[in-house]
Amino acid sequence: MGKIIALLTDFGSKDGYSAVMKGVINKISPNSKIIDLTHDIQPQNVNEAAFVLWASYQYFPKQTIFVTVVDPGVGSERKILLVKSRDYIFLAPDNNVLKYILSYQRILKIYSVENKKYFLSNISNTFHGRDIFAPVAAYLSKGVLPKKFGKEIIPLTKPENFISLSEFKHKLINGKIIYIDRFGNVITNIFVKNFEDINKIKYVLVGEYRIDRFLKFYSQSDNSNLFGLVGSTNLLELSARNMNASEILKVKIGANIKVVMK
Amino acid sequence: MGKIIALLTDFGSKDGYSAVMKGVINKISPNSKIIDLTHDIQPQNVNEAAFVLWASYQYFPKQTIFVTVVDPGVGSERKILLVKSRDYIFLAPDNNVLKYILSYQRILKIYSVENKKYFLSNISNTFHGRDIFAPVAAYLSKGVLPKKFGKEIIPLTKPENFISLSEFKHKLINGKIIYIDRFGNVITNIFVKNFEDINKIKYVLVGEYRIDRFLKFYSQSDNSNLFGLVGSTNLLELSARNMNASEILKVKIGANIKVVMK
Amino acid sequence: MGKIIALLTDFGSKDGYSAVMKGVINKISPNSKIIDLTHDIQPQNVNEAAFVLWASYQYFPKQTIFVTVVDPGVGSERKILLVKSRDYIFLAPDNNVLKYILSYQRILKIYSVENKKYFLSNISNTFHGRDIFAPVAAYLSKGVLPKKFGKEIIPLTKPENFISLSEFKHKLINGKIIYIDRFGNVITNIFVKNFEDINKIKYVLVGEYRIDRFLKFYSQSDNSNLFGLVGSTNLLELSARNMNASEILKVKIGANIKVVMK
Repeated sequence: MGKIIALLTDFGSKDGYSAVMKGVINKISPNSKIIDLTHDIQPQNVNEAAFVLWASYQYFPKQTIFVTVVDPGVGSERKILLVKSRDYIFLAPDNNVLKYILSYQRILKIYSVENKKYFLSNISNTFHGRDIFAPVAAYLSKGVLPKKFGKEIIPLTKPENFISLSEFKHKLINGKIIYIDRFGNVITNIFVKNFEDINKIKYVLVGEYRIDRFLKFYSQSDNSNLFGLVGSTNLLELSARNMNASEILKVKIGANIKVVMK
Repeated sequence: MGKIIALLTDFGSKDGYSAVMKGVINKISPNSKIIDLTHDIQPQNVNEAAFVLWASYQYFPKQTIFVTVVDPGVGSERKILLVKSRDYIFLAPDNNVLKYILSYQRILKIYSVENKKYFLSNISNTFHGRDIFAPVAAYLSKGVLPKKFGKEIIPLTKPENFISLSEFKHKLINGKIIYIDRFGNVITNIFVKNFEDINKIKYVLVGEYRIDRFLKFYSQSDNSNLFGLVGSTNLLELSARNMNASEILKVKIGANIKVVMK
Repeated sequence: MGKIIALLTDFGSKDGYSAVMKGVINKISPNSKIIDLTHDIQPQNVNEAAFVLWASYQYFPKQTIFVTVVDPGVGSERKILLVKSRDYIFLAPDNNVLKYILSYQRILKIYSVENKKYFLSNISNTFHGRDIFAPVAAYLSKGVLPKKFGKEIIPLTKPENFISLSEFKHKLINGKIIYIDRFGNVITNIFVKNFEDINKIKYVLVGEYRIDRFLKFYSQSDNSNLFGLVGSTNLLELSARNMNASEILKVKIGANIKVVMK
């Protein structure tokens, strides 16, 4: 059994674009196992993809190859990064989509993918997922060494951290919303260790809303009011039972929040 | 080749939640084969999930492990059931999602999943799909015996039957709508054996609509009027050619219907 | 490892219909590898499916079995085709969904699928994907010869070509829109070899819009105006950077366009 290749794109499902990547991978490396991380990132939404990748990667077997193709700059001079971390390999355009990975994985080497030997023979200007990312991932899964794909570079992508509540020294934290999931749960960049940690918060301000109730799980709420909880990736999450919290709050990814401590 | 694990959730595809379950399964049981039954159950719609599971499971190889995570009570005291039937294994919260399975499969044993040895080491209060269901399914597929996961219990979930048209003795059947598919076909809880059976119906009442035409297949209709037919799971189905019957009828899952016999 | 079976349907994901096909395939041929080409073709949209199949198939390993179930005539007298081409096998209803395949693959034999020995024992009138297509694909992947499934026929489906820009001799080409992808890119039936080829175009007329700018890749545009480019399958594509071109143009599949040469 070859290595796992996990695909994360904004290609959606209707056009067959992600399936074509699987076809290409299967031609080169028929024994690799492909898992769809998701293909339903909002078109060109690099921030969404950055979060989903970070929230998911650590639950995959070591040596998994993560292929992220959310790539508004396809065809331009933007680089394609091959990041070898302690535990995994990441392929992605150099457009910030790896910002959390660069912060939270121990990075060993970063290469610029340039060796056309490992690309398809005809390279379009619009579909590098098929022509570059898929064959490169396939050759990686067959054991071709990362250094074979190009030279080491310093990426433009900068690491981005979350804010750790327990290490924060002031009364007021300026945070932001970094993801909204399909249930409408609003995920912030405030890292909380556990329920005791979250209870050091007096309230959270989001636009005109003030949230001062903190619960352990969704159905603990007996009404549809907003509350905060420790999300499944230990980030402060804002929710409402059986309701879409993001619609109540009328917020989008990137919106600012304020956290006021007791 | 390990056993098949079939996943049925309301996680959608965009957030990577279902992919994370696959990562966890692959870490523990790399040889198991995962099939997505669906992840697009409407959020928290236990009735939708109950139907899709029932309509699908019997077409899978014996010993398939069905993992159903539509779980509004996640984090609360609700139990997680491990149901060993004659042919399959089912993992699901004890929230009625197995109501048709308990009715139509011969049940051998029902356990409450409680042995933390088979969970991830950190258990969130919001994502048991990842922390409990996925690892338990993985260990089951590796051959760990069902009784190892917890003690036998009597579930709160009660079996639910369909109404068999041919066994029904009265002129009027009070039925209901139990599913609406992507084409807008409206599926009822009236079991019909075949086309002869369905022709014993005089008409079906749904709200203000009266349907008295019964056909063998969709394109047999030469107009867009509503008709009844024997659905692919032998339930009475209401359809309209190249139209969305549920939109015409303005109905939702759970709506009542009346079937009047000839 | 068995052959690859690629599935292309309009079943969507929520109902479990495509998963049931996988269950059936796994019962008969547990070693075959199933890849979802897509299940999100618009309900009954044969033209969409025809394009996605054509745009994708050549990137798959040889001997892949493509199963296309977009089948408004299910249950009627329409035939199911088994097309053996030089490199692949295609299963599909005889409803034009193979129009580009018949034009662009060298066809060896075409059979009508009729041998009930390879069907499920109970055949519904509404779900041949489960009852016929899936088991036939499974037996094909196990090595049953195409001729075992039925007799040779001449299909009703006629081959359809694209218009090759470089071979066209006149000033005006009457083309049409054959696909719109999730990003809103509008794909035409005008085949262009490369960027030099596309620059022989003076302008393209789509409804009231006139497009006379041609670029190499999406982010080359510094505004949101429409432009043309060589798409990833070498068809003339109309796009707008970070915008949905099809919404700007207010067009659907099938709309006419005019290409005026320099």
